[in-house]
Amino acid sequence: MRIPFDQLCHILCGILEKRGMDSEEAALSARLFVSSSADGVHTHGLNRFPVYVSLIDRGYIDVKASPVCESRIGVIERWNGRKGPGNTNAWKAMGRAIELSHENGIGVVSLRNTNHWMRAGSYGLEAVDAGCIGILWTNAMPNMPAWGASDARIGNNPMVLAVPYKDTPVLVDVAMSMFSYGKLEKYRLEGRQCPVDGGFDEQGLLTRDPGAIEKTRQVLPMGFWKGSSMAIALDLIVALVSGGKTTKEIGELDCETEVSQIFMAIDLSLFPDKYGMEHRIGETLSFIDSSIPREDGACVHYPGEGMMRKRRESERLGVYVDDSVWEKVQKL
Amino acid sequence: MRIPFDQLCHILCGILEKRGMDSEEAALSARLFVSSSADGVHTHGLNRFPVYVSLIDRGYIDVKASPVCESRIGVIERWNGRKGPGNTNAWKAMGRAIELSHENGIGVVSLRNTNHWMRAGSYGLEAVDAGCIGILWTNAMPNMPAWGASDARIGNNPMVLAVPYKDTPVLVDVAMSMFSYGKLEKYRLEGRQCPVDGGFDEQGLLTRDPGAIEKTRQVLPMGFWKGSSMAIALDLIVALVSGGKTTKEIGELDCETEVSQIFMAIDLSLFPDKYGMEHRIGETLSFIDSSIPREDGACVHYPGEGMMRKRRESERLGVYVDDSVWEKVQKL
Repeated sequence: MRIPFDQLCHILCGILEKRGMDSEEAALSARLFVSSSADGVHTHGLNRFPVYVSLIDRGYIDVKASPVCESRIGVIERWNGRKGPGNTNAWKAMGRAIELSHENGIGVVSLRNTNHWMRAGSYGLEAVDAGCIGILWTNAMPNMPAWGASDARIGNNPMVLAVPYKDTPVLVDVAMSMFSYGKLEKYRLEGRQCPVDGGFDEQGLLTRDPGAIEKTRQVLPMGFWKGSSMAIALDLIVALVSGGKTTKEIGELDCETEVSQIFMAIDLSLFPDKYGMEHRIGETLSFIDSSIPREDGACVHYPGEGMMRKRRESERLGVYVDDSVWEKVQKL
Repeated sequence: MRIPFDQLCHILCGILEKRGMDSEEAALSARLFVSSSADGVHTHGLNRFPVYVSLIDRGYIDVKASPVCESRIGVIERWNGRKGPGNTNAWKAMGRAIELSHENGIGVVSLRNTNHWMRAGSYGLEAVDAGCIGILWTNAMPNMPAWGASDARIGNNPMVLAVPYKDTPVLVDVAMSMFSYGKLEKYRLEGRQCPVDGGFDEQGLLTRDPGAIEKTRQVLPMGFWKGSSMAIALDLIVALVSGGKTTKEIGELDCETEVSQIFMAIDLSLFPDKYGMEHRIGETLSFIDSSIPREDGACVHYPGEGMMRKRRESERLGVYVDDSVWEKVQKL
């Protein structure tokens, strides 16, 4: 079904306020969920909202907690998320990184002891909306085997790279696994195979069958050894800079919480050649989009274009919400 | 054949001095080449030296040029590599980023108008040797099709993530393509197939045949659409921050030169919890290394371990140099 953006925000906001979340905070959290769905990222939008609310109800997310700055090392700030809501914590941390970038060219905020930030791309969009480049990543609980291993000891540690460009920024939002568990579930529910190998089955063979991978939990790192290596380094960097938990340490808790994140913003408006930048970005993006497509009649797009097409559609028709998800949300 | 480290450095240094390179500069450049080979990265070590010298002889690399700082935006410095040697330029830029990190927690140096830096990992090792986290990447000429395209319009834009740890740091050095052209050539010369699909053949089918991929130049991005997206964003970020050329603009030159790079260092010695860091890193790395291997009798290693094993071997036995490469080097 399709529901207007504002109406959805209002409903989600009410559900969060009922749980004691401050109204401004609840409005922000609701908007982040609805925007994800509006942009086509259902797995980290409305589909995830019931899980988020259950984590509040079970006490893993403290709706009253606000992040605080605990220390500053040069231009790097270290914040404590105090187990607050992962999406509003991340929004505030990126907001602070943007502020710091106005003073220092680059702003760096690390955040420990926070919760899952839902859609990573949200905070990249926050940066580009402020005219900044955004670079950010998070760690996660152990949910992926390292390359050559069969048990999950590293996180899929999603990373975002965002570059402002008119109303359709470049937005890269990639987990270090080939597919997130949310994506695997989506493929399974739709009765589809993964477009490429996504993990290992019970025989230890590579497979595109989402259900088989969900069973073994042996997801494949993107680029095999490459995504595995990157995930290991991203985890260590984010845990060291924030002073927060590593993937291994998160795995010792009874659920995925107390994760560590880093947010970097680079303020392009401070650069002397800022006026030429949009033109230069556009030249690169049209060069890419005018590539010769591998399949006749197909189109090549830069990362971010598809998302913006879906947003326009949601603005016109309302935000798509899966019927079964909607049923769950209405009971909250 | 095996040749002692110092002897190799001495020979390479002489070849560069003969071309008018200042002796200190030549010693640094030679050491970077020999270290790459010693660490097992032959494709960007000795194997590449004849190409480097030919670029000097053809005037693309100016052996007399030193990089200069052109401007500073907050804590970000913008340097001009003045078409100097790519490896010594990159070494100096990372050195400056390390210096800046001592003052600001993080140091950021961007470098435009420079040449191929050879082995990307060298500058990650430079950072960890100074007790810093290193994050760096470069752009390249168009050498990879974007996802869905069949003509090369994006670069493979290698990225490095490095974390200090005792004498065996974590070192991730990944091109955004599944295999570099140097690696494809190596597989072909050894009569081997790529371990996984590396690109497309003339029929447009995915293949592991290195020669077929070299022919079409349709290398596969790591993680398919993921590596493609990352390469696009990394190129734009590095070109905007440095004010240097984009991949598209480099493609308009008659050879791969005037590339753009960025170097970030984070000085861990400034952090109040610095004394606990080594222990925490070690806990994560042993957790990963004690994973259950996918194949009986195999071992799981963190990124950087294999390299350090090869370095120890080179220290004991001398640096391995391919006979045909050695023949070429002796004629320079």
